[in-house]
Amino acid sequence: MSDYEQTAPYLDPSSVGIVQPQTLIFDEPLTLECQQILPAFELVIETYGTLNTDKSNAILICHALSGSHHAAGYHSADDTKAGWWDNLIGNGKAIDTSKFFVVCLNNIGSCHGSTGPTTINPKTGKIYGADFPLITIKDWVKTQVMLSDRLEIKKWHAIVGGSMGGMQALQWSVDYPDRLSRCVIIASTPKLSAQNIAFNEVARQSILSDPEFHDGWYLEHGTYPRRGLILARMVGHITYITEDAMKAKFGRDLKSGRFMYGYDVEFQVESYLRYQGERFSQNFDANTYLLMTKALDYFDPTRDYAPDGLSDEDALKLTLSRTRCQFLVISFTTDWRFSPERSVELVDALMANTKPVSFVNVDAPHGHDSFLFDIPRYRDALKGFLQAK
Amino acid sequence: MSDYEQTAPYLDPSSVGIVQPQTLIFDEPLTLECQQILPAFELVIETYGTLNTDKSNAILICHALSGSHHAAGYHSADDTKAGWWDNLIGNGKAIDTSKFFVVCLNNIGSCHGSTGPTTINPKTGKIYGADFPLITIKDWVKTQVMLSDRLEIKKWHAIVGGSMGGMQALQWSVDYPDRLSRCVIIASTPKLSAQNIAFNEVARQSILSDPEFHDGWYLEHGTYPRRGLILARMVGHITYITEDAMKAKFGRDLKSGRFMYGYDVEFQVESYLRYQGERFSQNFDANTYLLMTKALDYFDPTRDYAPDGLSDEDALKLTLSRTRCQFLVISFTTDWRFSPERSVELVDALMANTKPVSFVNVDAPHGHDSFLFDIPRYRDALKGFLQAK
Repeated sequence: MSDYEQTAPYLDPSSVGIVQPQTLIFDEPLTLECQQILPAFELVIETYGTLNTDKSNAILICHALSGSHHAAGYHSADDTKAGWWDNLIGNGKAIDTSKFFVVCLNNIGSCHGSTGPTTINPKTGKIYGADFPLITIKDWVKTQVMLSDRLEIKKWHAIVGGSMGGMQALQWSVDYPDRLSRCVIIASTPKLSAQNIAFNEVARQSILSDPEFHDGWYLEHGTYPRRGLILARMVGHITYITEDAMKAKFGRDLKSGRFMYGYDVEFQVESYLRYQGERFSQNFDANTYLLMTKALDYFDPTRDYAPDGLSDEDALKLTLSRTRCQFLVISFTTDWRFSPERSVELVDALMANTKPVSFVNVDAPHGHDSFLFDIPRYRDALKGFLQAK
Repeated sequence: MSDYEQTAPYLDPSSVGIVQPQTLIFDEPLTLECQQILPAFELVIETYGTLNTDKSNAILICHALSGSHHAAGYHSADDTKAGWWDNLIGNGKAIDTSKFFVVCLNNIGSCHGSTGPTTINPKTGKIYGADFPLITIKDWVKTQVMLSDRLEIKKWHAIVGGSMGGMQALQWSVDYPDRLSRCVIIASTPKLSAQNIAFNEVARQSILSDPEFHDGWYLEHGTYPRRGLILARMVGHITYITEDAMKAKFGRDLKSGRFMYGYDVEFQVESYLRYQGERFSQNFDANTYLLMTKALDYFDPTRDYAPDGLSDEDALKLTLSRTRCQFLVISFTTDWRFSPERSVELVDALMANTKPVSFVNVDAPHGHDSFLFDIPRYRDALKGFLQAK
């Protein structure tokens, strides 16, 4: 073995190693909540670990806004960038692939391989573009149930998600209560607040008002709404981290050491945000961003299960009375996008139903983004909950 | 008197009535902090109440980002919209015009009449546009001192400001410690945090990246960056109010009563933000918005008075040792733009210098915007401080 191979990260015994995405074709019409019908669709998935003979050790991972099916491992021996949750998924890690068969999919409407605005519309032979319908969390769960059937997994050992992924896990617990034993909802909320929607709306307007958006047909015009995507990501990014984290990382440090009295980058925090926005704009589809923020706004699991006129608390309580799994709810002290109070709403509604629920409010400085970090108390809570008999 | 006249708001005995802005010409070069020189400038001001014979009852009002000289009263008998601080300035009000001579100016760089990006550059005979230099809080205070000299006011009874206005009051107290007896700093901060700068940067990039901005020469192109200004105001507006206030006002109410599955306005909060942004874009100059946000970012009164390398606390303490006035610092419990903690930094630094300071943290639900409301505890603190012997 050469030195290079010895230090290649995919060879680390805790890594799931080199993984191969698979594409599953669902050649049947899917009626969406918006009443539009997808004639067929594809899901790209990755799996880690081994499914046991009675198919009782499967864990489904649901991704957040900018996530994908690539949650762990590497795509080649040269790949240096691991999947987005590699620090928590692997041999001996919080989601232990020596014990569990872990499935992560790319949701439809996304831009990482599954059917979405950048894939071909079989009706027209061209990319879907702006014709791709709006998708809801409930729609995603429906496709995930079809995936479960394809994999012949009748009941998931656990369904796990952070942020928008947590909303999918929660929706599973009320829509298909018999198909999961455990539900892990991390840095999430039972529904978005007006302020959450307001930030999403700024992001959407940034994209929609960019002249390069062309009503969603930018790819046909050979362009993309770069400026809009940058702005959308900048405003999003501010809400993912915390004022204190920004202070610690940048404070009021100046890029050139002095005031320039112009509109070029002056403070380090400006440079950082512009870089994040630029990088994101090169890797993410604008129609997908719009669709994802709408899916967030629409999310409200009580809509199908509680009559109009109930208080928020009573509607959530009634809705969660349907659930039959064990819950682990995790929040982070500095998360101001979906604050610990929003997790407490969930926990209170579950406890009012005498449902089994564990709640951990993890002290972490990273704000909403904390769910992507390997934090000991978070890791231990997750690992313990998944492995408890 | 007709019924109309009887109910006209300018006739209310507590109103300062119909007021007439005045334009003062300063025909002398002004060297700015950025080292550029304005050959001359004009200030538009309004005054309310009567200056006493020894000129000891004058109060200067400094405005915030979107404010102007028109702080109180009406511009005509038909005018139904009072000045921006009319609820606090008038006969018997918190800033009592039966006792005080109140002066409010429009700062240079603004777009409400004083010399700024939309006024004529004497060098070119055309509007300044993008050629208008960047202005700092310290520059504004310098022009306010020139205004004081013109009005022959040697020492202000008080200088009062909210938000960016409070920064001007604070800068006065260290730059010209002998020229004010009282300093009132409301909903403000000793300097912006990285998060504050980040939000400003998103607003600036919204404007700068709008193709209609034309490098600041939009008026010459017969246009203006409407989309950029709307986005800038939307993101700003979210930070001026609170999550709870948004929840109380809009919750998740739908404009049409049901989900539309499109990108038109769906939630009431979206409609509100778009309306606020649209209205603002029609009444505010983009170059002024850029300039004002930079003035905010640059603000740091310790720069001239504390050596590099001191901690933030020690730098502020050393700087405030120069002050000779009494202070009233007011914050609002729900303000997350400039939180009460930021006011406490100021108060602590003043107390460490054994300077006379009163501090009131007012319980109010309106977030940063609270300083524009007539809240009993706020009003009483302000009124009492200004009138105390």
